Amino acid sequence: MKNLRLYDFLPSGNGYKIRLLLTQIGMPFERIEVDITKGESRTAEFLGKNSNGKIPVLEVEPGKYLAESNAIMIYLSEGTEFLPYDPFFKAQVLQWLFFEQYSHEPYIATPRFWISILNKAQEYREVIEQKREPGYVALRVMEKHLSNHAYFVGERYTIADISLFAYTHVADEGGFDLTQFPAIQDWIERVKAQPAYISITEELKH
Amino acid sequence: MKNLRLYDFLPSGNGYKIRLLLTQIGMPFERIEVDITKGESRTAEFLGKNSNGKIPVLEVEPGKYLAESNAIMIYLSEGTEFLPYDPFFKAQVLQWLFFEQYSHEPYIATPRFWISILNKAQEYREVIEQKREPGYVALRVMEKHLSNHAYFVGERYTIADISLFAYTHVADEGGFDLTQFPAIQDWIERVKAQPAYISITEELKH
Repeated sequence: MKNLRLYDFLPSGNGYKIRLLLTQIGMPFERIEVDITKGESRTAEFLGKNSNGKIPVLEVEPGKYLAESNAIMIYLSEGTEFLPYDPFFKAQVLQWLFFEQYSHEPYIATPRFWISILNKAQEYREVIEQKREPGYVALRVMEKHLSNHAYFVGERYTIADISLFAYTHVADEGGFDLTQFPAIQDWIERVKAQPAYISITEELKH
Repeated sequence: MKNLRLYDFLPSGNGYKIRLLLTQIGMPFERIEVDITKGESRTAEFLGKNSNGKIPVLEVEPGKYLAESNAIMIYLSEGTEFLPYDPFFKAQVLQWLFFEQYSHEPYIATPRFWISILNKAQEYREVIEQKREPGYVALRVMEKHLSNHAYFVGERYTIADISLFAYTHVADEGGFDLTQFPAIQDWIERVKAQPAYISITEELKH
């Protein structure tokens, strides 16, 4: 796997998952900024890479593209310490990845996008309000699990943690109050203490 | 893998994915009906199986539970003809599974639930209306792909097809007009022609 090229948007949590994992695996890659606030993921050229018009997209070799952050993470982490080999543990990782995309990201990530990236909190206030309670439901599911587990699966750091960390640790930028979730807060600190950790908007030197 | 037990709700497309796959693999299982319209997936007992309170849940052995339909499908199909062995093809299957849960199911499945299962089209008409356009966006992404592919990945039937078929083939029950998508309609017929196919509400004899 050489010449990996990541089509990415720096403030994106979904893009950050891939940046963080590649950095922790120690795999070099080229990052190409796609400003989704300027429609750059909806051009005909970009739609040729991902017909769903979303970043991140990983070009695994020239002309071979892969979309969906969690699918990319599974692809990259097979055979590494970040994805368990045991079939049931691996399935539990997958379970949390689908939880993240279905029950967590749509409620936690989008208010942050409207409030802190687009700076349009007022314009989006109604839909932000609709997302508040399901977002807290997802955080309560995480808090309950982390109350007696150090990490999401197998008591070690995996891509399940990376996936859920990406938008949870910046949930306050979407108006969520994390102070009521002590187990989540402790887990955030454990993730930040991992080797080769980089922050969400840290520019990479490659 | 013996004594598989599936906590399921017969009209559910997410439950159907597992029933269809297990039947096509030829793996026996016990189905336990959980009526989600009566709150049976939110009891303390059920939350002990899946803290997110959703079906399907697969009990892979007594006391070991797995949630999230697409995660369960990956777990069950590893090593079978329904999940490619080639890493890039496999990653493309995963890509479509995450597309299904993020960009498709929330828009295609929920109107069907409100209109045809709860029979509350009037009560939910506003949110049904909000989901119409993103639902058609997802169908257009599928139509474009199927215009020059027989199946979603590798020109053969995989769990990517099962996942997207589950709610697409009954999208009309949620008010979507599939007549404008000829490639999707042809693909639906190809899926229905697969060996050991069962329909979504077909009661199984085990």
